[in-house]
Amino acid sequence: MNFTIDRDVLLEKLNIVNHGLPTKTPMKVLEGIKIDVTDTDLFLTATNSDISIEVLVRDSSLTIQEGGRTVVPGKVFIDLVKAFDSKKITIFLIEDRSLMLKADRKEYLINIMDPNDYPAIDFVTLENPFTINCNVLKQTIEETVFACSTMNKNPMLLGVNFKLMGNTLVVTSTNSYRLSQKIIQVDDYPEFEITVPAKSLDELEKSLEAYEENAPLNLYFAKNKMLVKFNDVLFQTRLLDGNYPNTSNIIPKSAPIVVRFNKDELLTAVNRVSLLSPGDKERDREITYNAVALKIDQTHEVELSSANNQGAGKEILIPTDITVSEPLVIGFSSKYLTEALKVLPSNEVELAFINSLRQFTIRAVGNDSLTELILPFRLEN
Amino acid sequence: MNFTIDRDVLLEKLNIVNHGLPTKTPMKVLEGIKIDVTDTDLFLTATNSDISIEVLVRDSSLTIQEGGRTVVPGKVFIDLVKAFDSKKITIFLIEDRSLMLKADRKEYLINIMDPNDYPAIDFVTLENPFTINCNVLKQTIEETVFACSTMNKNPMLLGVNFKLMGNTLVVTSTNSYRLSQKIIQVDDYPEFEITVPAKSLDELEKSLEAYEENAPLNLYFAKNKMLVKFNDVLFQTRLLDGNYPNTSNIIPKSAPIVVRFNKDELLTAVNRVSLLSPGDKERDREITYNAVALKIDQTHEVELSSANNQGAGKEILIPTDITVSEPLVIGFSSKYLTEALKVLPSNEVELAFINSLRQFTIRAVGNDSLTELILPFRLEN
Repeated sequence: MNFTIDRDVLLEKLNIVNHGLPTKTPMKVLEGIKIDVTDTDLFLTATNSDISIEVLVRDSSLTIQEGGRTVVPGKVFIDLVKAFDSKKITIFLIEDRSLMLKADRKEYLINIMDPNDYPAIDFVTLENPFTINCNVLKQTIEETVFACSTMNKNPMLLGVNFKLMGNTLVVTSTNSYRLSQKIIQVDDYPEFEITVPAKSLDELEKSLEAYEENAPLNLYFAKNKMLVKFNDVLFQTRLLDGNYPNTSNIIPKSAPIVVRFNKDELLTAVNRVSLLSPGDKERDREITYNAVALKIDQTHEVELSSANNQGAGKEILIPTDITVSEPLVIGFSSKYLTEALKVLPSNEVELAFINSLRQFTIRAVGNDSLTELILPFRLEN
Repeated sequence: MNFTIDRDVLLEKLNIVNHGLPTKTPMKVLEGIKIDVTDTDLFLTATNSDISIEVLVRDSSLTIQEGGRTVVPGKVFIDLVKAFDSKKITIFLIEDRSLMLKADRKEYLINIMDPNDYPAIDFVTLENPFTINCNVLKQTIEETVFACSTMNKNPMLLGVNFKLMGNTLVVTSTNSYRLSQKIIQVDDYPEFEITVPAKSLDELEKSLEAYEENAPLNLYFAKNKMLVKFNDVLFQTRLLDGNYPNTSNIIPKSAPIVVRFNKDELLTAVNRVSLLSPGDKERDREITYNAVALKIDQTHEVELSSANNQGAGKEILIPTDITVSEPLVIGFSSKYLTEALKVLPSNEVELAFINSLRQFTIRAVGNDSLTELILPFRLEN
């Protein structure tokens, strides 16, 4: 193996492959990046228990003297290429023991691993793509992935569920105390339902940074795995195996109490009130407690309040619109509300309540495609 | 107690007082900020085992309805004032149990502490000030404080030593493996030698952010304490009690091997080479190991190299000037060299070596006021 390439090009490709490196692994060889050099092409590969990434490096600056194959420790390789300030880097194997990175007056040797120990990766066949706009997918990931569970009690909740029915793609995430659901209209494609690990979607979103925002993106499916292809990158993730809970009846169809707020004003008030809310008490139930109370009385005055052992706070909120059939007092996690508000794409938001015991929804005014839902606390009184 | 003040003014003063709050304390009341309101003035005070800060708040926006005295938990008080977005805040006591912060449609109550539990602070008398330019002091702190020890073996090394002889102020810090020393010319003042805790200097530097850069600053001394007065702030710190080691013979007067480099080029090379240097092995000796080797041969070629279990790196450096009486191979901590280079105020730096076993110095070319000194490792060969 012996090739020369522009440092900037190599680093850009390595930054994508980096998303496939494991954070921790008992299999030492997976800490490495596999480098395959043919007579004409350079491939970089990384894999962990969830994600496999293969990048084909095609660039006019690439000059291949000799093909070859090796596995080089990923972190130090990327750190070194990042630290190189030369325009070009020449990379070659020395006696199958180390990889030399050479430029100007610099010579760096990295001890390599045995490429025969590296697992073969079975990428999904590139047939029958499901096509989605890159921007739409990135935004949908941002709008849903935060609401996934982070605990292993129900492993299916560690992922985001994508369900295609007709031309409607329903994207859902929940930790069973709050839920986020996005509805997207897409082109014809056979119905499917998959659940993608949240971590894979995080890494996919970051990997797409170098991809054209408004371009179509091809997704390919096989049993328990999904492949995303963009530029010369294959990004494959395993899918969660099991039945995702049926959430179709959880989102209330109508609600008697509907209040609209300026989003930023509500967000600021919730953040302020939560400074005097109870701390993180119920970790095992995956609730960051931070309870605050919202009270709407006969006169339609809306009050947000909280109390903990340090003190108590209350604010009168000014709704931009209000429809109330009866008074309401409801308690919920301020953290869930602020996270929901942050992803809603409008200046005005609508909160819709049934009563103090039932889940309530938050939506952007003028855009129903994204629904945020929160389960209330039972207020102790 | 009942007063009204502009939120921005109160927050600016609280941000200064904040530097006097303890990070951790067994004395609960010290987590509080003392608020003293006289008929005409508002005082804010915080204190910990090292630092006491008192701020007199004088502002045209301050309206006092009623005097009084209380201690309010510092963190939540500052967080709330920060979170308030109203122009003015009204603050008053309710039944000696809680402090009310009120503005617009917001009411926040904080449970208070007993002001009788708060310790009396004995500030140094404002007589015989030693005057130093604020900018000069801030820069000197930055140039020295990083080289202090962070371990308790010799408590005097936890501070920066200030020694005035004639018109020369010598400011020294060391952890016994590296040293930083700044020489400043000052006005006439009786000779003194004090050692100020590094942490106090860090907090002093941050507290001075709101003070005019080029203004003179008054320092007052008493047994084991020093007071800095600026604007309406009293910043007092305890001094370390003991004899600071005599460092006057540690800095070599001359050296036979002198090499000059472009600072940024050297810094980049050292950072890169250190990626393949041994890790942090000798914590108990307060050495972040990161050993690299510098080699100068007969032909005046300068090579920087390192090796660890992941690989090895070497670079040829191009000095801007070189005087070498004999070849040299010397090993040292790359971390110490990069930290030293970062504080040197020039584009070109000069490294001066005696031999591979003796401490070496790094100085800015054209500015001798700051000396950085590093003790080499004994290279294993």
